[in-house]
Amino acid sequence: MAESSPSLVVVSAHAGDFVWRAGGAIAAAALRGERATVVCLSYGERGESASQWLAGKSLEEIKALRREEASAAASALGADIEFLDLGDYPLRESDEAVAQLVDVYRRTQPTVVLTHTLVDPYNGDHPAAARMALQARVLAQAIGVANSDGSYPSREQIIGAPPVFFFEPHQPEQCDFRPNVLLDITDAFPRKRAAMECLPAQKHMWSYYTDLAVRRGVQVKRNAGPNLGLAHETMGEAYVRYYPQVTGELA
Amino acid sequence: MAESSPSLVVVSAHAGDFVWRAGGAIAAAALRGERATVVCLSYGERGESASQWLAGKSLEEIKALRREEASAAASALGADIEFLDLGDYPLRESDEAVAQLVDVYRRTQPTVVLTHTLVDPYNGDHPAAARMALQARVLAQAIGVANSDGSYPSREQIIGAPPVFFFEPHQPEQCDFRPNVLLDITDAFPRKRAAMECLPAQKHMWSYYTDLAVRRGVQVKRNAGPNLGLAHETMGEAYVRYYPQVTGELA
Amino acid sequence: MAESSPSLVVVSAHAGDFVWRAGGAIAAAALRGERATVVCLSYGERGESASQWLAGKSLEEIKALRREEASAAASALGADIEFLDLGDYPLRESDEAVAQLVDVYRRTQPTVVLTHTLVDPYNGDHPAAARMALQARVLAQAIGVANSDGSYPSREQIIGAPPVFFFEPHQPEQCDFRPNVLLDITDAFPRKRAAMECLPAQKHMWSYYTDLAVRRGVQVKRNAGPNLGLAHETMGEAYVRYYPQVTGELA
Amino acid sequence: MAESSPSLVVVSAHAGDFVWRAGGAIAAAALRGERATVVCLSYGERGESASQWLAGKSLEEIKALRREEASAAASALGADIEFLDLGDYPLRESDEAVAQLVDVYRRTQPTVVLTHTLVDPYNGDHPAAARMALQARVLAQAIGVANSDGSYPSREQIIGAPPVFFFEPHQPEQCDFRPNVLLDITDAFPRKRAAMECLPAQKHMWSYYTDLAVRRGVQVKRNAGPNLGLAHETMGEAYVRYYPQVTGELA
Amino acid sequence: MAESSPSLVVVSAHAGDFVWRAGGAIAAAALRGERATVVCLSYGERGESASQWLAGKSLEEIKALRREEASAAASALGADIEFLDLGDYPLRESDEAVAQLVDVYRRTQPTVVLTHTLVDPYNGDHPAAARMALQARVLAQAIGVANSDGSYPSREQIIGAPPVFFFEPHQPEQCDFRPNVLLDITDAFPRKRAAMECLPAQKHMWSYYTDLAVRRGVQVKRNAGPNLGLAHETMGEAYVRYYPQVTGELA
Amino acid sequence: MAESSPSLVVVSAHAGDFVWRAGGAIAAAALRGERATVVCLSYGERGESASQWLAGKSLEEIKALRREEASAAASALGADIEFLDLGDYPLRESDEAVAQLVDVYRRTQPTVVLTHTLVDPYNGDHPAAARMALQARVLAQAIGVANSDGSYPSREQIIGAPPVFFFEPHQPEQCDFRPNVLLDITDAFPRKRAAMECLPAQKHMWSYYTDLAVRRGVQVKRNAGPNLGLAHETMGEAYVRYYPQVTGELA
Repeated sequence: MAESSPSLVVVSAHAGDFVWRAGGAIAAAALRGERATVVCLSYGERGESASQWLAGKSLEEIKALRREEASAAASALGADIEFLDLGDYPLRESDEAVAQLVDVYRRTQPTVVLTHTLVDPYNGDHPAAARMALQARVLAQAIGVANSDGSYPSREQIIGAPPVFFFEPHQPEQCDFRPNVLLDITDAFPRKRAAMECLPAQKHMWSYYTDLAVRRGVQVKRNAGPNLGLAHETMGEAYVRYYPQVTGELA
Repeated sequence: MAESSPSLVVVSAHAGDFVWRAGGAIAAAALRGERATVVCLSYGERGESASQWLAGKSLEEIKALRREEASAAASALGADIEFLDLGDYPLRESDEAVAQLVDVYRRTQPTVVLTHTLVDPYNGDHPAAARMALQARVLAQAIGVANSDGSYPSREQIIGAPPVFFFEPHQPEQCDFRPNVLLDITDAFPRKRAAMECLPAQKHMWSYYTDLAVRRGVQVKRNAGPNLGLAHETMGEAYVRYYPQVTGELA
Repeated sequence: MAESSPSLVVVSAHAGDFVWRAGGAIAAAALRGERATVVCLSYGERGESASQWLAGKSLEEIKALRREEASAAASALGADIEFLDLGDYPLRESDEAVAQLVDVYRRTQPTVVLTHTLVDPYNGDHPAAARMALQARVLAQAIGVANSDGSYPSREQIIGAPPVFFFEPHQPEQCDFRPNVLLDITDAFPRKRAAMECLPAQKHMWSYYTDLAVRRGVQVKRNAGPNLGLAHETMGEAYVRYYPQVTGELA
Repeated sequence: MAESSPSLVVVSAHAGDFVWRAGGAIAAAALRGERATVVCLSYGERGESASQWLAGKSLEEIKALRREEASAAASALGADIEFLDLGDYPLRESDEAVAQLVDVYRRTQPTVVLTHTLVDPYNGDHPAAARMALQARVLAQAIGVANSDGSYPSREQIIGAPPVFFFEPHQPEQCDFRPNVLLDITDAFPRKRAAMECLPAQKHMWSYYTDLAVRRGVQVKRNAGPNLGLAHETMGEAYVRYYPQVTGELA
Repeated sequence: MAESSPSLVVVSAHAGDFVWRAGGAIAAAALRGERATVVCLSYGERGESASQWLAGKSLEEIKALRREEASAAASALGADIEFLDLGDYPLRESDEAVAQLVDVYRRTQPTVVLTHTLVDPYNGDHPAAARMALQARVLAQAIGVANSDGSYPSREQIIGAPPVFFFEPHQPEQCDFRPNVLLDITDAFPRKRAAMECLPAQKHMWSYYTDLAVRRGVQVKRNAGPNLGLAHETMGEAYVRYYPQVTGELA
Repeated sequence: MAESSPSLVVVSAHAGDFVWRAGGAIAAAALRGERATVVCLSYGERGESASQWLAGKSLEEIKALRREEASAAASALGADIEFLDLGDYPLRESDEAVAQLVDVYRRTQPTVVLTHTLVDPYNGDHPAAARMALQARVLAQAIGVANSDGSYPSREQIIGAPPVFFFEPHQPEQCDFRPNVLLDITDAFPRKRAAMECLPAQKHMWSYYTDLAVRRGVQVKRNAGPNLGLAHETMGEAYVRYYPQVTGELA
């Protein structure tokens, strides 16, 4: 396989998830000049839009609104965004959906994949998204697995073995989320905040997720080695690395 | 705290452990020109020297022999070595032993610590060593904890929060050892092999641990991202990172 | 949401399960004058009716018999019962079955939900029932998820966040069943016994589950705080609470 | 055993822990008119007083200062406080310390016990405190275990089986802390805040732990059943119940 | 149920898996004169045949080749082999596939079942195969579950409760594979080696899996009781027993 | 090492434990003509003799009584018994106690060891006994570890690697006790019952542990392979095997 240039792919069950949970990592990649692609499997139109349903909006209106907001948020982060419109509550796992993800992976050639945790007792769509993101990653590596148009991939089209990180769920302990990576997002945080502000219906979450970034930032500092020279007002995001880290140096 | 220069400290229950389990990481650090220090808590004189006991050697002869061999192996890896001579089978945890380790940490200012797993149903000395290594690491950070001579440390003498990695036990699955770091030791392997050959009484283990390096090397390749450009004959060592990784970039 | 009056809903894979595993909780709720509803997803006609198959009964005869027995048992406990007749061995998960459960929840407005464990190496229908019971509970909370007739729920029809308890499987340790709630069913036990006696084909289980109630009763006593004034002949049932307990007082 | 009146006992490794981690539960008990007793095993004089060491204070000065502050905080919460002065970093487990705790339990007759988690990779004193709190609780129940003055307890002096709750550590996920109880501390929060403000050296933690109370309050709401009528600005604390809950009603 | 004669059934996701992972157990059964049946759910034609795809072979050519090689390997081990040709990458779980396995079980009357682990982050086909193997085992026990031709089984056709063992995945620790059975395959190893050599495309794995047999053989010796009289060059395979062992004697 | 003849060693924290928890295994060994040795680390004089304390007995009277009863019970089972009289509540771990156990092991040359679980939130003496039993087993294997009289063991005196089984605690799920071995004790049960009846102060436990044997017997049947020909009234005991089983045949 040829050397790939950095490419971050984020598989998100609903429009919005990627902002609260991984906005810092996305913005940091974009700030480094790397490509970042968000794939929203659904708009979260049924399960995560209660205020709009209560306001009497129709299904199509809600989907359009959420598409617009998510696009703005991705733009604020510096990422591309795609919508697979698979429906939510429940998000159904299917061969077709996985095949679409295989295509996305082969097109974007991810060097890092972010997605939900495999456990979430509060929202079954999140693990369903994670299972599909993981399954597609394995299928996309196989030269004998056809693209969704029936053609077979060339040697260049199959993907490598990008590391997968699970981003933080709303109630981490209930989701067996034990972070093994703490990401310093201090420099990227203003972009994350700007992206959050693209989601006006969830205004109460702006401060909630700013506080969370402070909280994870404190942990960044507590766990940092002595020579990282971290600035004082560290902001953080927490992740679970799913596959072992491969490295040439322990650090 | 001032920026520390790289310093690897390996806390090993018995003379010999550090060679089989962490020789690659030690040699790699030395090859990068970094300081590496091995601390042997005991010589393994009672529990890991059966052939010498059967040959009728005395306790003191066995300790001298193992000290000599371990020193040669450390030298082959490019590391310093210290012996605390705490006795083995059992290795006893004590305030005094922990205080000695606090002194070592403050003197060597580790940026990375390697030690045994916290679970080992085959050898209680290994978890005892790990518990002391971990406890001393926390105590050495505290400015209110005196040195073993009763003096209090200066601000420069206390240590930071170096990451801790557990190296691979003999029967990894029985020790709840699930590697989350796979280290590429290809370039360092010749030194590791040379260090193994400093331990002639365990000649049958030379090939055993060479095979293990091949095995972990295969896993390095299987888990590597696409743009690492790994050479074909990859050799590896497996580790468990104990505290979350702190990083500015997911990779 | 308006204050709901107490409503217990029990989702049972097969007719019969609710008697052995949760009969005490059901009877206790009924004795307090609360509404209790049992939902049998299947009759257990294929997998749990071996003696009737050996006696040459037909599928329809077996289903009728088990429906009759389960109805009598529910009545003895003081509960309503509904049968979804989804078939067993295997009990198939489907969107339609989940939608039926959403309707049941919205109609019964549960304040407590009981169901099977998520792990059972002896009977795949049990985890399948639990997964559907949990998924439907989340969907029934969402105002954007339609009822099975296509209408959308009103604000009053969506449900709250009732706690979920898993009842005890036949071989608890193999099902990762670690009780975190021990229920005193002393007063309700006569009703549970009467319900068991509505299932004559499983007469050998009457004493088995009476013994189990004694066993769990002993644990009730061993774990009880000092001022509960428990009677001497305590009978018990064990449960696993799935979501955190919400409370205004630690006790 | 006679019916005990409510009595909350909090076993804290260092002065200060009880404020951040369990201040809400303590204040809530006091507001209900119940007795609450804090037992500080040490002052945290070596490990948790870095700023005072840096300011050149002596060991005795630091202990006196922390004693004073912790006493003020306990008073703000409405609790009694006792100091065993066992030393910290490390807090040493000993028969004598456990015997002192046995005496405390027999004197205070706890109906609820709060302490640290059994796992904490950042601070070995916390699990040591928890182990002693748990061991003493079992010993205090036994009529054949003498008091520390050598006398044997009367039947009234031995304690019952009070439930034990672990309060929240600083980095919960790294301490295997998966809350199974979420406590609504909304009414008690002003007292908790006042107690925090008795600890001026850790002023940066006032907002940090206020944010945490908001965070756990959001989870209180998300997990609450529909008919709890919770006020909008819910504040919370998270706990792990160690022994099964004993109850006469599932809720 | 009548006494069954020994019958080993191996459910393998892809042609080839059974050789590397369970070849020793299969050959050992055959050497004891017992019946052994391998069921390959797919040929591994898409996911495990990269070199053939790169060589420009067609799907049908690859399937034919792998069928031939797997048949030769089974023959070398002394086992029968059946191919269900369900497709791979992904191997899809379906009622029809499970029904076919029910038929196989009822026909072969297994006294031991071997299959993949339930967790494998590198290959979703493996857990899918294991789930179907386990589900079919339970269904095949039930006299009320029809055969795939719609007939009902006789009392003799239903199966007992054969123990299930998971064989070793490629990266055992990542698959939560903690062996609780170490099988001595010393005498059977030459047959296993011969079977490996029937798979020429994977020549590099011959030595890899020979080394693994040595490695597991060392563990056989380390864990063996004192009176087994094991020969020096022990070869081994590792397994996880899924259900409790039933025995009349602890040993 | 020479072939050892079967020798069962049971390490029990208190007099009495071995009867309720392992009486079947002990009696079964004795019925097969094998040697069985019970080692009681304490008499359970403080923590498990409440009724005698309430009756006003002295410490020495209680110890004498329990010694007598335990001796009678061991005799009924067909086992030898030794008392180390280390004291209970708490049972203290010490080098001396472990050294005594090393001597016992070297004298009795166990081929099987039974002891308590490593987790027991209700009784800290049980895990303490298990830790010492396990540590001594490893030390007794080492030719460089002296006997308690200072002499070194001969090659014949060191022990092999006997399998270790944990017997069932009172509240198994709370002790992480997940049985992986179910022992058929049907033939041995009358002796177990007779041994129970040697402990008149705990008469209420006779039926309790008879019921438990029935319960585990039902599980023996449910998990048994088809050709074991088990009798109908199966009685059982549950165990956790600690080290992997070494075997020449999967069954």
